[in-house]
Amino acid sequence: MQLAMVGLGRMGANIVRRLMRDGHDCVVFDVNQDAVAALVAEGATGATSIADLAAKLQKPRAVWLMIPAGLTGTVVDQVAEVLEPGDIIIDGGNSNYRDDVRRAKKLDDSGIHYVDVGTSGGVFGLERGYCLMVGGHDEAVAHLEPVLRTIAPGPGEVERTPGREGDYTTEEQGYLHCGPSGAGHFVKMVHNGIEYGIMAALAEGLNVLNNADAGLHQGEHSAEVAPLEEPEYYQFDIDTARVTELWRRGSVISSWLLDLTAAALSQNPTLDGLAGRVSDSGEGRWTVKAAVDTGVPVPVLAASLFERFASRGEDHFANQVLSAMRLQFGGHQELPAGDVLEAGQKKAESGRD
Amino acid sequence: MQLAMVGLGRMGANIVRRLMRDGHDCVVFDVNQDAVAALVAEGATGATSIADLAAKLQKPRAVWLMIPAGLTGTVVDQVAEVLEPGDIIIDGGNSNYRDDVRRAKKLDDSGIHYVDVGTSGGVFGLERGYCLMVGGHDEAVAHLEPVLRTIAPGPGEVERTPGREGDYTTEEQGYLHCGPSGAGHFVKMVHNGIEYGIMAALAEGLNVLNNADAGLHQGEHSAEVAPLEEPEYYQFDIDTARVTELWRRGSVISSWLLDLTAAALSQNPTLDGLAGRVSDSGEGRWTVKAAVDTGVPVPVLAASLFERFASRGEDHFANQVLSAMRLQFGGHQELPAGDVLEAGQKKAESGRD
Amino acid sequence: MQLAMVGLGRMGANIVRRLMRDGHDCVVFDVNQDAVAALVAEGATGATSIADLAAKLQKPRAVWLMIPAGLTGTVVDQVAEVLEPGDIIIDGGNSNYRDDVRRAKKLDDSGIHYVDVGTSGGVFGLERGYCLMVGGHDEAVAHLEPVLRTIAPGPGEVERTPGREGDYTTEEQGYLHCGPSGAGHFVKMVHNGIEYGIMAALAEGLNVLNNADAGLHQGEHSAEVAPLEEPEYYQFDIDTARVTELWRRGSVISSWLLDLTAAALSQNPTLDGLAGRVSDSGEGRWTVKAAVDTGVPVPVLAASLFERFASRGEDHFANQVLSAMRLQFGGHQELPAGDVLEAGQKKAESGRD
Amino acid sequence: MQLAMVGLGRMGANIVRRLMRDGHDCVVFDVNQDAVAALVAEGATGATSIADLAAKLQKPRAVWLMIPAGLTGTVVDQVAEVLEPGDIIIDGGNSNYRDDVRRAKKLDDSGIHYVDVGTSGGVFGLERGYCLMVGGHDEAVAHLEPVLRTIAPGPGEVERTPGREGDYTTEEQGYLHCGPSGAGHFVKMVHNGIEYGIMAALAEGLNVLNNADAGLHQGEHSAEVAPLEEPEYYQFDIDTARVTELWRRGSVISSWLLDLTAAALSQNPTLDGLAGRVSDSGEGRWTVKAAVDTGVPVPVLAASLFERFASRGEDHFANQVLSAMRLQFGGHQELPAGDVLEAGQKKAESGRD
Repeated sequence: MQLAMVGLGRMGANIVRRLMRDGHDCVVFDVNQDAVAALVAEGATGATSIADLAAKLQKPRAVWLMIPAGLTGTVVDQVAEVLEPGDIIIDGGNSNYRDDVRRAKKLDDSGIHYVDVGTSGGVFGLERGYCLMVGGHDEAVAHLEPVLRTIAPGPGEVERTPGREGDYTTEEQGYLHCGPSGAGHFVKMVHNGIEYGIMAALAEGLNVLNNADAGLHQGEHSAEVAPLEEPEYYQFDIDTARVTELWRRGSVISSWLLDLTAAALSQNPTLDGLAGRVSDSGEGRWTVKAAVDTGVPVPVLAASLFERFASRGEDHFANQVLSAMRLQFGGHQELPAGDVLEAGQKKAESGRD
Repeated sequence: MQLAMVGLGRMGANIVRRLMRDGHDCVVFDVNQDAVAALVAEGATGATSIADLAAKLQKPRAVWLMIPAGLTGTVVDQVAEVLEPGDIIIDGGNSNYRDDVRRAKKLDDSGIHYVDVGTSGGVFGLERGYCLMVGGHDEAVAHLEPVLRTIAPGPGEVERTPGREGDYTTEEQGYLHCGPSGAGHFVKMVHNGIEYGIMAALAEGLNVLNNADAGLHQGEHSAEVAPLEEPEYYQFDIDTARVTELWRRGSVISSWLLDLTAAALSQNPTLDGLAGRVSDSGEGRWTVKAAVDTGVPVPVLAASLFERFASRGEDHFANQVLSAMRLQFGGHQELPAGDVLEAGQKKAESGRD
Repeated sequence: MQLAMVGLGRMGANIVRRLMRDGHDCVVFDVNQDAVAALVAEGATGATSIADLAAKLQKPRAVWLMIPAGLTGTVVDQVAEVLEPGDIIIDGGNSNYRDDVRRAKKLDDSGIHYVDVGTSGGVFGLERGYCLMVGGHDEAVAHLEPVLRTIAPGPGEVERTPGREGDYTTEEQGYLHCGPSGAGHFVKMVHNGIEYGIMAALAEGLNVLNNADAGLHQGEHSAEVAPLEEPEYYQFDIDTARVTELWRRGSVISSWLLDLTAAALSQNPTLDGLAGRVSDSGEGRWTVKAAVDTGVPVPVLAASLFERFASRGEDHFANQVLSAMRLQFGGHQELPAGDVLEAGQKKAESGRD
Repeated sequence: MQLAMVGLGRMGANIVRRLMRDGHDCVVFDVNQDAVAALVAEGATGATSIADLAAKLQKPRAVWLMIPAGLTGTVVDQVAEVLEPGDIIIDGGNSNYRDDVRRAKKLDDSGIHYVDVGTSGGVFGLERGYCLMVGGHDEAVAHLEPVLRTIAPGPGEVERTPGREGDYTTEEQGYLHCGPSGAGHFVKMVHNGIEYGIMAALAEGLNVLNNADAGLHQGEHSAEVAPLEEPEYYQFDIDTARVTELWRRGSVISSWLLDLTAAALSQNPTLDGLAGRVSDSGEGRWTVKAAVDTGVPVPVLAASLFERFASRGEDHFANQVLSAMRLQFGGHQELPAGDVLEAGQKKAESGRD
């Protein structure tokens, strides 16, 4: 079928490529006309503006937006202006599902359908396909099935879940209509919330392995840290690159994120050059807020988010407050920078609280 | 080569079967002689006692113990009594790595080698192979390589990590000599700690999905819970069985634990009949304690452990203390069981703290 | 000065009493006219409607609302209708500070001032005074100072902070103009977020004390729980009622919440009759959401909130998912209710993961 | 009565002073003879060695050790050598309660009593008195009551808990016999675990207040951080020094730790010069380990401990692992130091996961 793509960054461009490989007809637009030209060279139809794009599409038109979340609202409005009742706007970006709920309601009167598609797969998606979480009206989603099926990974080599038989369901092919507008990005949001938790579990565990030799380095931080009590049990020099590779085979925690970790450590076993300031996009935050709203306990997901905040130094004032309290215990009225250690030491000597 | 197996539960028996399939010679013992007989019928050599087992082995003997952690210490002693210098005892169970450190030291004088093997794979290990994390002296571990290679999954269909080439390393075949005695169980311990974290991330995320319809059930718990503020954003009836199946294809969180979750939800979408009292073996606890000892922050791993404790009601007294404090705010001196709700309501009305 | 009070629940009525004791003139209204009559008997001027209330006030009128947060928006609108430019509406309830920001902006055109007052103190406020966190325009807050000073505790017997001297600042008298509209409830919100964290710290610690005798009760939960490893270190039968009383004197954690805990345990040492289902009002949730919005790590505050959710069973589906995964490891396809224990046992025997 | 003090650091010396003020007779020893001389000048009897100390004491001798936990074991042995059956050794330092259990058992045969005293109060103890948590045999503890009563704060100005009447119990006087040997330090350990949690709750909350102006500083960290979604709600410039002072009066979270925080912020409102690397002594760690051993969920106490670890950079490798995974998503094979930001930016642009 025919699909228009607005936004030809890596994700948008690769989806277009995947569609064209499977025989779909793509009309493409980007403010960067070089990106348009590149895909035209690969067989796409180029557009010079959103209006031009609309003119080149058969009805009902289907326009997929693959643009940064901050711009999506504006572009949805621009596209809606040149569309007609029965046409479909698809937001395949990383929007907050709340924006979908609002946009779909706003578009309702115009008769234009709004479909939100949470898309997972990263740079591997061109080859592996993208996992698609879809929200919107039944009719609009049904119309899009041919392209969703192509963009998705398909059943692939994934072992079939015991008990499932017969024709593959859509979820077994890698796409799922999750519910009304917003449901797609809601499910994607939670997916990313889980992703943060899994990443944190792996990272924390590897940090424990990385410190399994603490008994060999005693006394290095003596003033700040309570001394290691049983150094004889922490004498292991574990090779985390080899261990993560090992765990990929037959272990309970084998996973794609472990594959990536093993690859990263294989290339750079000490992770030299990485500052460890960990970004977060919006989904992890939205997941925690949705959990708080609905009264669902998510200590692990929240902790994984807060670790990222702290990795960027956002815990600094809190830590200063803690140090300030401890200095009050110790009776020190003021303390120049650099003397914290010494103060810790004095406190350790006087042995209190 | 020849290997003795002591302990013929599912794990021990399946390892023996996997070894025999690959042409190894197994001598087996269990206090349950029916278990011995079953494997003898499949080609193993049976033993009627540990002494008998030792007598049937060529030197250097290799005796693999696959028994509950609580019994391992005793059986190690029993086996050590009938072995000779140069023989090897392998503990393939779920021992605390600290026991390995102690046992290896204790056996040192006798000249008997002690090798600890953390083994992951569950009931799928017979077919998939077991992921093996090994600790012990180089010489002893080297002697065991033929059986380790058979028990492990081998390279299998796992895609090779980019950058790795040439002969497969042992970790790519699913077994790894991680370090001296205890290192195998240390790595296995951390593996399980990570496992708890990943499981919790998935479970919490699915709980958020399961409550995405909170806006449709407002007011049901009005006295205890703050009212949902924006019910219009929680109107989704998500099918978690289909979503977990979906995520198996192309998503960032695809993993074996997700496969299991999808299978469980496919069989029982509402999880009816599960009490949700989640056990923990020792490894999750030991991981947190090792992290505390060495000063490594593991908020996610710890939170996943504490969730399990709480699932079994171990948070009850703490929660009673919280309720008691809240009643003090409210000025109530005593409260009969069942009136908590009403008290909450009264408090909500007076609107304080 | 003169102040009108709308809402004569315990908090509203006690504030009126505290004001009248100090010579202020109070005009009072409540939909419950019995509540009005009771305060009229103590010296207040009663009103039969909001319009009547407005008529009985000198300009600029000051109308304090002390009503459930869910009703505040409506009543603000009703009161605004009968007020005039220069008059002041005070919301002393538990509103979300975001509502203040919106309401103040909405009232701006009308020339009516809006002041938000976060109020802490509970049932002890009548005698101790209420801690007042105030947001709003300088002019309006300045006009209210006489009543704020009376409602607040004053310097009292609290030891003066070292370094402070001269006249008492307003914060030393128990009220503070924290910033523009919303700032009062923002500070109150964080206060309650901290309160949850402190309560949880106390409750968790007491739970540890309460289980200090675990070594005397071994084996009671054998199938579900890993056995206690060193029972000789958990032989203490700690009297938590006496310990909390003790900590009130000279310890670092002495606090009003500890006082309340000691009182609760003194009255009911075993906390019998408390179900331990812990409510939460909105502030703890809003604090976590504000922290997530602004990228501030709050693992402790969030954990204390999630513990409350879990105490009400909101972790149930997550725990079922965990049990379901564990059963998949164990190869069980289905499990009737009540068999979880046995399944745990089987797993323990086979000793895996 | 007569008491010997070994270890004349601030704590030991101040306890001696407090005892002498109340008419007790003190014999003192320290390896630093200047410290001995100083107290002799104030009325104490000096000793030149532990043997000399023993010789100067009446039977049954009572020798209080106030020395760093790392040295206590050795000194207990030295003191035990010069004592006789019926004499008492008191460890008032910060020992792990497990050491008490072991030491008491070891001394049992000799007939020497061992009493452990957890002591809280910091530098304020000389004037306020010290909160004393005591473990040991009934007889030995009873013998020490006169000195315990003096060292403790006494009922003081603390308001009596409702319902308590008649003679003050020992806990109301600030000392409590908590149970057999180890019980005192066990209770002290949990006290400090709670202390960490309360400190963290305050610090996190103040950090939220400190970022209440985030809406005024948008875009400053644009590449690393998701943009603030509703900046209009984060426009407050909160004065944390004034707020903490305010909360000391009438609020639910009034506490000694809040008093200290208010004092610290009053002296140094921005906390300039504090590095925010927060030490931990042993008790917070032991509390978490005891909770893990006994299956008690302590998410708040653990989180507060892990925040301290992270404040010292112990999360670094974990954060590097997270960054490394994220770079794998983005397809980058290597990344020189300093380019993390840019990589985050690229990822943000391509908008994935």
